[in-house]
Amino acid sequence: MKKLKRSARLVEMTQYLLTRPHTLISLTAFAERYQSAKSSISEDLAIIKEVFEDEGIGELSTLAGAAGGVRFVPKCRKDQALEQMDSICRELEQPERLLPGGYLYMTDLLGQPAMMQEVGRMFATAFADRNIDVIMTVETKGIPLAHATAQYLNLPVVIVRRDHKVTEGSAVSINYVSGSTKRIQTMSLARRALKEQSRVLIIDDFMKAGGTIQGMVDLLYEFRAVVAGVGVFVESEVDSEERLLHDYVSLARLTEVDLKTRQITVQPGNFFQED
Amino acid sequence: MKKLKRSARLVEMTQYLLTRPHTLISLTAFAERYQSAKSSISEDLAIIKEVFEDEGIGELSTLAGAAGGVRFVPKCRKDQALEQMDSICRELEQPERLLPGGYLYMTDLLGQPAMMQEVGRMFATAFADRNIDVIMTVETKGIPLAHATAQYLNLPVVIVRRDHKVTEGSAVSINYVSGSTKRIQTMSLARRALKEQSRVLIIDDFMKAGGTIQGMVDLLYEFRAVVAGVGVFVESEVDSEERLLHDYVSLARLTEVDLKTRQITVQPGNFFQED
Repeated sequence: MKKLKRSARLVEMTQYLLTRPHTLISLTAFAERYQSAKSSISEDLAIIKEVFEDEGIGELSTLAGAAGGVRFVPKCRKDQALEQMDSICRELEQPERLLPGGYLYMTDLLGQPAMMQEVGRMFATAFADRNIDVIMTVETKGIPLAHATAQYLNLPVVIVRRDHKVTEGSAVSINYVSGSTKRIQTMSLARRALKEQSRVLIIDDFMKAGGTIQGMVDLLYEFRAVVAGVGVFVESEVDSEERLLHDYVSLARLTEVDLKTRQITVQPGNFFQED
Repeated sequence: MKKLKRSARLVEMTQYLLTRPHTLISLTAFAERYQSAKSSISEDLAIIKEVFEDEGIGELSTLAGAAGGVRFVPKCRKDQALEQMDSICRELEQPERLLPGGYLYMTDLLGQPAMMQEVGRMFATAFADRNIDVIMTVETKGIPLAHATAQYLNLPVVIVRRDHKVTEGSAVSINYVSGSTKRIQTMSLARRALKEQSRVLIIDDFMKAGGTIQGMVDLLYEFRAVVAGVGVFVESEVDSEERLLHDYVSLARLTEVDLKTRQITVQPGNFFQED
């Protein structure tokens, strides 16, 4: 790379950091990349750090010492996130989203990359310190959420299938009971998809009783892997004895569906509750 | 937003543009956001433009006049992209990827967000000028590719399902013949997912004869929508009379699979051919 002026270097470093979240970059690597003294690089990083933290883009955490460097940790600010989530809740409350059986049509929202990135940044904030190795979701609607989160956490994604496909090689299948419909269903994961002892973050779009997520937890047990966290985009309010799962982060909460008046009420989830 | 010094403003503007691809931002909006004169903003944009273009991040295209502004168009440089694709091809050639029937295991690669973003940027480059309204893929493995591309093109994604789910509302279903296995299969798309006359970019992970993609083309016809482009990650070489589809962009090309020696040959696709 040719030697850049400070102003150009700031632009390049900003994009370099933004596209490499949760990656330790040594000062030496930066100094070589930009053919500049480490002292100049440190000054640049201080400027970037201040902007990232003031504007709610994330943190630049610095590791001192010989093995040291800098790591960009994407985070959202709770106040900004709450504003975004309020607007998502208003969209979810549109009466035309109501489907037979009290389900909500939300496929269109899950197809908007900019919104998925906002949501992914919220999950990445919630689970930044959980030492996760891999993110898991079940096809189909959870995939955009899992990938958006994975992008900010710099982690791979594995996808649990509803059936077993030839293109996956040998797989482990389990049966589980869907919490709300009480029907027995099957899910499977390619044997080579997950290493033993992996710490896994489960992400899904919707949770009622939690049967599907409990199925994923059982599947992880077969792989001798560990649940490091569970994140759901929208949870639906159910009686607490019906709930199979209690430790999870939700971004939104469907509290009321009135099929007669087509009134839907959606509120920000437990991610936004005061600790 | 508080008033920033030039160096901090460059950092903020860089991240602002990077997270808003294919979006026209007026100089006035920037001037207000940063409480700065348009002349200063123009100077900043010139610096950002030079770095983005020199480093192969993309183009900053400027629209003059009262309705004018600046638009960040993410693009990859062909030489950098070819280097990335060569390394992806080497990964695809690992003998342990070979599955019964001559299929390749590539789910792990499709689960790597950083690689998906490289690939998405290639598709976004190939289809930057096609006036696309929406990106379409079929579940499951095409979804990460479609979303990565959509992120760079700032477009929504619609997902064709293999079966019809209650959470999708009313849907249009078609039958199609899988080109390689000659089996009749079904695919469906929610009626509300696509407007008439939409210009659609079809993205998929793998194409043999092209039956699945031809199925999506037929489905688009039912919605009176228009195919604006077809992009596949890996195409498999087939006899040209077997190929159902001829106008597409491929990023990689599986030219040889020897089941006995487990030798796999993958080369860069037609995206990299000289025009």
